[in-house]
Amino acid sequence: MEWPMQVTVWEVGPRDGLQNEAAFLATEDKIAWIHMLADAGVSHLEVSSFVSPRWIPQLADADEVCAHLPRDRGIVYAALVPNLQGLERARQAALDVAAIFLSASETHSQRNINKGVAPALAQYRALTETAVAGGMRVRAYISTVFGCPYEGEVDVDTVRRIALTLLEAGVYEVSLGDTIGVATPRSTEAVLSSLLRDIRPAQLALHMHDTRGAALANLVVGLQHGIAVMDSSLGGLGGCPYAPGAAGNVATDDLVRMLHGCSVVTGIDEGLLAKAGAFVAERLHTTLASKMSRVYAGGAGS
Amino acid sequence: MEWPMQVTVWEVGPRDGLQNEAAFLATEDKIAWIHMLADAGVSHLEVSSFVSPRWIPQLADADEVCAHLPRDRGIVYAALVPNLQGLERARQAALDVAAIFLSASETHSQRNINKGVAPALAQYRALTETAVAGGMRVRAYISTVFGCPYEGEVDVDTVRRIALTLLEAGVYEVSLGDTIGVATPRSTEAVLSSLLRDIRPAQLALHMHDTRGAALANLVVGLQHGIAVMDSSLGGLGGCPYAPGAAGNVATDDLVRMLHGCSVVTGIDEGLLAKAGAFVAERLHTTLASKMSRVYAGGAGS
Repeated sequence: MEWPMQVTVWEVGPRDGLQNEAAFLATEDKIAWIHMLADAGVSHLEVSSFVSPRWIPQLADADEVCAHLPRDRGIVYAALVPNLQGLERARQAALDVAAIFLSASETHSQRNINKGVAPALAQYRALTETAVAGGMRVRAYISTVFGCPYEGEVDVDTVRRIALTLLEAGVYEVSLGDTIGVATPRSTEAVLSSLLRDIRPAQLALHMHDTRGAALANLVVGLQHGIAVMDSSLGGLGGCPYAPGAAGNVATDDLVRMLHGCSVVTGIDEGLLAKAGAFVAERLHTTLASKMSRVYAGGAGS
Repeated sequence: MEWPMQVTVWEVGPRDGLQNEAAFLATEDKIAWIHMLADAGVSHLEVSSFVSPRWIPQLADADEVCAHLPRDRGIVYAALVPNLQGLERARQAALDVAAIFLSASETHSQRNINKGVAPALAQYRALTETAVAGGMRVRAYISTVFGCPYEGEVDVDTVRRIALTLLEAGVYEVSLGDTIGVATPRSTEAVLSSLLRDIRPAQLALHMHDTRGAALANLVVGLQHGIAVMDSSLGGLGGCPYAPGAAGNVATDDLVRMLHGCSVVTGIDEGLLAKAGAFVAERLHTTLASKMSRVYAGGAGS
């Protein structure tokens, strides 16, 4: 099939990126960074998490960050929401989207959210109905879709059953997570072919980690299946603290370059994106993993 | 179309990788590294260059390296050959393949080999006929197929004309080089679709640099077009000293992981490949760019 002409890049760096960085990014720097991302044309931003600060101390300032978002550009904002209490905080923060998260594998579910897949699904069904009734959209991450650090291969029928249950409950988009970065073009093809028998491409997103370097290759397969929403983290920041060996999200800057090079519209300005990346790298005292950050650092970005 | 069931990985690290490293790898370390690559199951190896040592001092020990290759495993060996003098050295070194190289863009050709495209093509036609008459196979690199650092876009009809001329002269395989790493899945698709109207997939290879992170994504498009020969450099070593901003070749270890994850046979042992990568990194006092080298360094390679 033809590729999508336009792709929505869900920038998850302020949440998925920062939650796995050792350093705490100062609240004022988070806010400045989000404004730079907005200036670069990022239209979908996951800004923080309403999970307990004991679990993710890097994002303990969620309310403060949400109080200073640029609200005049039509940007869609999301935060992680683990339960009804988190949903209420997201509502008070006037966010557009509550992002819920559960695993496709039992052991990862137990270790990540301390409950099994079935009870998590039941809880999130109820949460989704409450959120939708209150006018908030719900996006769901399914983790370990392409492999589990504890169980290895994950049954694609389990993934489909979870996705369908969530969509029936009112979730508008399911993001398929390669939590530990083991997906390949072939397994991406297999999962999407299976899911797209019952689910429309517009209901799916891909959330790839680049542990083994194949994230963009996998996203090409996604594009070829009509998937037009992709999660990424500027510079390749981030990972998952509960998945040993997991590296960062696919890098927004590398993804956007590839998409633009394929004449796919994102609405993002690559030069301003590079500036936002250089800013966060400097404030975190780190070096970004993305290739494009090196192209710009070497002055070959034109 | 279906992907190839088997892919030939042309390991070019000992030539393309090392020629762009600042450090000189000691001759004995080169030989030890090549033996480790052979032990890992690498079947096609570009071991050095018979270009003048004034141009590539890192490979000044080509004759010595060639005198100590493991000859008992049926490995196909190549070296860069710029002229008839280089061809004679390759013949005396008992190499299987002479690798010739020319550019698809006039300015890069002038700066890289100090002559225009047409004279280079005429010279290489004659060289190829001589080589083939003497029982040696000839492989040709076309540089700047997907873009030129001086001229920008490159005409695909020029690429096709060069490739056809070379194949008619007796070249057995043309490797399409993304010298500065600007190829995208879309441009890879465009170039291959055009060339495959006149050329069989078995006559083409892809030589991708990973400057912008899309090399594996581009190779997926190659696989989908039936291309089954791919050049890579272990760990992502290398680049092109005459192409400003160019980063290293696509990393053999990341490529092999993706291929194996897609059930494509390469004959390469990933664990032994990782050991060969760790060895050369240590001897060069460098850190490899490949993602898999980090997976193995982190102990998550199983």
